[in-house]
Amino acid sequence: MKENNLRKVWESGGCVINGWLSIPSGFAAEVMAHGVGELKWDTLTVDMQHGVQDYQSTVSCFQAIATTNVTPMVRVPWLDEGIIMKSLDAGALGLICPMINTGEEARRLVQACRYPPLGQRSSGPIRAGFYGPDYQKTANENIVVLAMIETREAYDNLDAIFSTPGLDGIYIGPSDLSLSLTGRPGFDHAEGTVQYETIMRILEKCREYGLKAGIHTGAADYAAKMREAGFHLTTVGSDMRMMLLGMKNELEKLREKKGEVKKRPY
Amino acid sequence: MKENNLRKVWESGGCVINGWLSIPSGFAAEVMAHGVGELKWDTLTVDMQHGVQDYQSTVSCFQAIATTNVTPMVRVPWLDEGIIMKSLDAGALGLICPMINTGEEARRLVQACRYPPLGQRSSGPIRAGFYGPDYQKTANENIVVLAMIETREAYDNLDAIFSTPGLDGIYIGPSDLSLSLTGRPGFDHAEGTVQYETIMRILEKCREYGLKAGIHTGAADYAAKMREAGFHLTTVGSDMRMMLLGMKNELEKLREKKGEVKKRPY
Amino acid sequence: MKENNLRKVWESGGCVINGWLSIPSGFAAEVMAHGVGELKWDTLTVDMQHGVQDYQSTVSCFQAIATTNVTPMVRVPWLDEGIIMKSLDAGALGLICPMINTGEEARRLVQACRYPPLGQRSSGPIRAGFYGPDYQKTANENIVVLAMIETREAYDNLDAIFSTPGLDGIYIGPSDLSLSLTGRPGFDHAEGTVQYETIMRILEKCREYGLKAGIHTGAADYAAKMREAGFHLTTVGSDMRMMLLGMKNELEKLREKKGEVKKRPY
Amino acid sequence: MKENNLRKVWESGGCVINGWLSIPSGFAAEVMAHGVGELKWDTLTVDMQHGVQDYQSTVSCFQAIATTNVTPMVRVPWLDEGIIMKSLDAGALGLICPMINTGEEARRLVQACRYPPLGQRSSGPIRAGFYGPDYQKTANENIVVLAMIETREAYDNLDAIFSTPGLDGIYIGPSDLSLSLTGRPGFDHAEGTVQYETIMRILEKCREYGLKAGIHTGAADYAAKMREAGFHLTTVGSDMRMMLLGMKNELEKLREKKGEVKKRPY
Amino acid sequence: MKENNLRKVWESGGCVINGWLSIPSGFAAEVMAHGVGELKWDTLTVDMQHGVQDYQSTVSCFQAIATTNVTPMVRVPWLDEGIIMKSLDAGALGLICPMINTGEEARRLVQACRYPPLGQRSSGPIRAGFYGPDYQKTANENIVVLAMIETREAYDNLDAIFSTPGLDGIYIGPSDLSLSLTGRPGFDHAEGTVQYETIMRILEKCREYGLKAGIHTGAADYAAKMREAGFHLTTVGSDMRMMLLGMKNELEKLREKKGEVKKRPY
Amino acid sequence: MKENNLRKVWESGGCVINGWLSIPSGFAAEVMAHGVGELKWDTLTVDMQHGVQDYQSTVSCFQAIATTNVTPMVRVPWLDEGIIMKSLDAGALGLICPMINTGEEARRLVQACRYPPLGQRSSGPIRAGFYGPDYQKTANENIVVLAMIETREAYDNLDAIFSTPGLDGIYIGPSDLSLSLTGRPGFDHAEGTVQYETIMRILEKCREYGLKAGIHTGAADYAAKMREAGFHLTTVGSDMRMMLLGMKNELEKLREKKGEVKKRPY
Repeated sequence: MKENNLRKVWESGGCVINGWLSIPSGFAAEVMAHGVGELKWDTLTVDMQHGVQDYQSTVSCFQAIATTNVTPMVRVPWLDEGIIMKSLDAGALGLICPMINTGEEARRLVQACRYPPLGQRSSGPIRAGFYGPDYQKTANENIVVLAMIETREAYDNLDAIFSTPGLDGIYIGPSDLSLSLTGRPGFDHAEGTVQYETIMRILEKCREYGLKAGIHTGAADYAAKMREAGFHLTTVGSDMRMMLLGMKNELEKLREKKGEVKKRPY
Repeated sequence: MKENNLRKVWESGGCVINGWLSIPSGFAAEVMAHGVGELKWDTLTVDMQHGVQDYQSTVSCFQAIATTNVTPMVRVPWLDEGIIMKSLDAGALGLICPMINTGEEARRLVQACRYPPLGQRSSGPIRAGFYGPDYQKTANENIVVLAMIETREAYDNLDAIFSTPGLDGIYIGPSDLSLSLTGRPGFDHAEGTVQYETIMRILEKCREYGLKAGIHTGAADYAAKMREAGFHLTTVGSDMRMMLLGMKNELEKLREKKGEVKKRPY
Repeated sequence: MKENNLRKVWESGGCVINGWLSIPSGFAAEVMAHGVGELKWDTLTVDMQHGVQDYQSTVSCFQAIATTNVTPMVRVPWLDEGIIMKSLDAGALGLICPMINTGEEARRLVQACRYPPLGQRSSGPIRAGFYGPDYQKTANENIVVLAMIETREAYDNLDAIFSTPGLDGIYIGPSDLSLSLTGRPGFDHAEGTVQYETIMRILEKCREYGLKAGIHTGAADYAAKMREAGFHLTTVGSDMRMMLLGMKNELEKLREKKGEVKKRPY
Repeated sequence: MKENNLRKVWESGGCVINGWLSIPSGFAAEVMAHGVGELKWDTLTVDMQHGVQDYQSTVSCFQAIATTNVTPMVRVPWLDEGIIMKSLDAGALGLICPMINTGEEARRLVQACRYPPLGQRSSGPIRAGFYGPDYQKTANENIVVLAMIETREAYDNLDAIFSTPGLDGIYIGPSDLSLSLTGRPGFDHAEGTVQYETIMRILEKCREYGLKAGIHTGAADYAAKMREAGFHLTTVGSDMRMMLLGMKNELEKLREKKGEVKKRPY
Repeated sequence: MKENNLRKVWESGGCVINGWLSIPSGFAAEVMAHGVGELKWDTLTVDMQHGVQDYQSTVSCFQAIATTNVTPMVRVPWLDEGIIMKSLDAGALGLICPMINTGEEARRLVQACRYPPLGQRSSGPIRAGFYGPDYQKTANENIVVLAMIETREAYDNLDAIFSTPGLDGIYIGPSDLSLSLTGRPGFDHAEGTVQYETIMRILEKCREYGLKAGIHTGAADYAAKMREAGFHLTTVGSDMRMMLLGMKNELEKLREKKGEVKKRPY
Repeated sequence: MKENNLRKVWESGGCVINGWLSIPSGFAAEVMAHGVGELKWDTLTVDMQHGVQDYQSTVSCFQAIATTNVTPMVRVPWLDEGIIMKSLDAGALGLICPMINTGEEARRLVQACRYPPLGQRSSGPIRAGFYGPDYQKTANENIVVLAMIETREAYDNLDAIFSTPGLDGIYIGPSDLSLSLTGRPGFDHAEGTVQYETIMRILEKCREYGLKAGIHTGAADYAAKMREAGFHLTTVGSDMRMMLLGMKNELEKLREKKGEVKKRPY
């Protein structure tokens, strides 16, 4: 059985540090997967929903990740059996599905991710087969399935969703949740806001049901705060955001020194 | 005639801020080309030599850059007429050629980059034709051609190289130059080192010949220093380095808060 | 807010001239987007339904289009939330969805295309974010959503479909409509045919509801006729058809001159 | 009308020998399509469900197959109208759809595959148009549509599925069927097992309904046995399995000769 | 032996009608290769020099061409043994090499294209092997090798070039030749111009040496004229030019009818 | 330092079992790299010369290989500094260069592969940098460079070639050598033939110079024989040949049982 960092970190009582892959390039994924010296991601999630990713680029990114011991995850574009099963066959050991708003949707998600008799996942783990001959026997217990909670409708159906057998946990999309609650997107909401309070109530309910809770954040500081609040997985940002952070840092320095960047002659 | 930021910045007495593209993805190139708010690159260079780039990924990156007003440049893999001409036909408005060590090599480079009667570039500007019907008439004067000076042999042949008609300037590769001079690679050499002194002498000779001088650096601070020393173009770093900078920043924050990153259970 | 040629042309009382991209190549898209001298398309639609296009080729084509001021549109393969949202995130400013046959299907289409509170589009405009920081605020009013009317069933449900809040208009697929009505495909139906009369009644009903009406045609002459009939958008043909037109023209000339083409020795 | 080897072989009373393409490479598909001397496949099926295939790689494989007279088939990833119609437009002359468990699902499958008035396939055969001007007229009778029977639920609904007008036959997925019946995947079940007996009863029912029956096998010997049992199409294995067979053969020989393979010093 | 349309047409006394592929898409190549009804190209040349083509796109185009009986040719980017041999291994049955200016360059070209003892082509015809087991035995006599004559230097060395054993003929690049002779690019030169007269003298010398002569043209009318002048192969234009021709035709019609195209509101 | 299986096996006195990658697919490379159970390759060589491989597909294959502990090698298309250095930067730990016929060519090969002061390889190990911070310091001693001996000219220059400092060994291309010696290609020559005797003399001379000797073979039996003769590396065959072996095996079985394959009705 291929070791799953998600389960390992959770068993040790830790919080998973997850990165996000939106650039459809195996090489960019390798850069992310190798980290910086000893600084590494526990997991990297190929974002097929909002990233510039499709199935083939996901395979490339999974191959890149497999050159390290980071665990490959995927966020699928939608609750769609075809792409969910293809992502698992490609080797995802964690799967995040957006916009799970009802118990029935949660059930369909689990059905697509689990082999019989728990679900109806079809047999044929083409790249996942590289994990070893026991892959199919252990997949149901090894793979982590997370439902995204990101609408008021979902919030209203938490009990139905959380009581779905075979669901490992949930993943909060604060930007969509904020859109749904307030009409405005946005991350890293401050304490006291309706978004923050809602998120904390969802987290509390996860504890009741014994589910794992993950959350998308826009900065390491906020991620650390969420870790302290009890989340089991935090996403700090994507390859694209890392690139923007670095660019901002370097271009600001050059501008500060001479004010050259702003006043360009073209 | 398509405006060339290189010539515009130089005419205004400024120093070009150049970025480097090593990830073979049009989307990654778009992220770099859009910059961060008002912070932008003047030029972006697709690195076909050491980057994970080939001709088709260069075309994708050039398309991405062309969605902004950043000027596209290329570093070709070697002094090879085939790929030099293809890169120019693809729309490069600046071209850097590695390892120009002799006057004859500089002459071959210029021959490949200039249309007759100055050179022997072949007619057929497939994407460059999008720049307008006057492209071929203005290409010889508009496109910037830079020879890399990065070996002791080149240093010994500076006069022969610098007196090549049709060459706009040079680009210093400090890592290869250091390898050649000292047997060790490395960037951003301190004053007093043999590398630093050699670089300054090359810069001095550029002034004598009226050539432009560019240099590869590993950080904005050093780039700013080189700008003050009189360089006309500085490369601050690549998409990959920007990503590493961002990653380091974020992952360190998470580690500091709990020391979690180092002690992983897997 | 990124200017949308669709809305600009309509505000000026004009009819949008739309081209179609079926070749999965950013370069082919660039050729189409640059047009011929002053002759340009207002919009170009990547055809993910019947074209040889998927998500990644759509991104490439959108990057190519973004090097000009042509407005990018997409025809998605089917009423599928995953690909609809991905296409919008990739930068589509107009979206055509095939086979909308009922009011419920029209409602699902609008839900997928509009951010809350109008719909349920998920937040994360990866390439559309390049349009500027106000993208999400203006997307609901800026993006044009068109439902394809192309079956007898749709014709029978026009009122239900046309009264869907958030729908900008419809797009007639004459070939499928003809198949549905007569069992035979085909474009550019003559006056007096059942297809022609049906199309005119749909157009009339668009006027009643204040909706925009677009139509697929097989030739400029017919497109001009439809423009005069009151259509707000006409598609003249695809990159593939343009290539066939050019080929026919040139190969016929060579054949005519010597009759050589027909009598080949192999 | 493009000749369909499926129908030709069946008309002659033969059993179709089908190969499976899981490698997303036109060149690998060409190798398979050319066979070995006179040894050829009748049909090759691009496996979009469990293979590393998506739409664009399917197009590449279909182009590769079209350089020979092998007939191109596809297994779509799921019962999804978008990809089913795109696969047919790309030129598939046989289509296998996984997990058809009810009569309603069988009806949806046929609707997606047949032009009106039999179904609701949309008009626009982009590559299939290369088959000739009569393509659309003949597609409904020429293309072979097979529903996969691979669950207990499907077995319980055989009559509803088999009586679907426009369905040519079924394709048995023994591994999923085994999972569903026994909780364990696996191919090539021995006589007397519940899987074997179930398969034989499905085959028997195919005869009653006049449907064609295909089956997935893991070895030529078993395929031959199924042929004798009355199956009309057998899949012997995939490009990947062919590669593994060859590798096993060669590496075993080298190991046997010196025992070197096992004892490696790294 | 795979039949070569070049040799077939020449044996029958005809003139080869050649098309040009600059779009890196197997599908675009298929459209070109299928032609329009009975109107077909004898040969299609993938333009690796000025087209947006590299080795992999050439393979895709060759696969596309191989679905018809059009003969695949290539124009390599430069006199480079690596890519020349790879193009032949990929299946090119005709090869055009740019910028052959001396007898020595012509000799190197032939050495790269012919197997020993005539040349030094390396053994390993990966896709060309699909032409049959006699490929290597017949390749030297079957494959057509053409040297581009497109500079004054080449014109001054015609005897040295034309007397190269193993060279089948030459291909005139009028635009580069014009650049070299007059400093201006351009096609389809009128009688009386220095370009026209030079071309005619080259053609005359081809007759003396018994070599085949091909020429690049910008329109069918001029190609027909060159055919009458005695050329053995004429290139009428590229996929890109076909697309531009079709676009011009259609967009002009729409503009003429209402003058809408010119006056756009955006 | 990344462990190099080539050096490990040689230090242990063993003979390297090398496979060959001609299919441009990371997935196909993963299948080869994972082997069959305990049966593995020591090294896999991406064949950029005669395989359907270019730089980007080589990167994909190297990523695939890096998911296992197989050592990645490359055969470059030609003695070309650009692609040699790019292949090493991409992570090749062994490099085979075709057609080294003179001492000067061997010297150029080594110059391109070794960092100063041994050679002139340029600094910038983009993917090779993943091997660790000591990569550049250890590359010269870790990377294995092999010159192909495959012509009579090379045979006549063995001493000049073999005495090149920095060359690790040679690789015999029996098919080209046979072409050069006899005018006919072919592998696995029998004892007593001129090819066999020549090969043995080259091997003998390798021993004199303390060089490693590798050889291309067409079957495991012959490879085993060459191993016994003293070769240090044998290539057994390519992914394509493995696929053909498997196909032959399976299709023959089906044909034998019923003779169906030969008599097809289409």
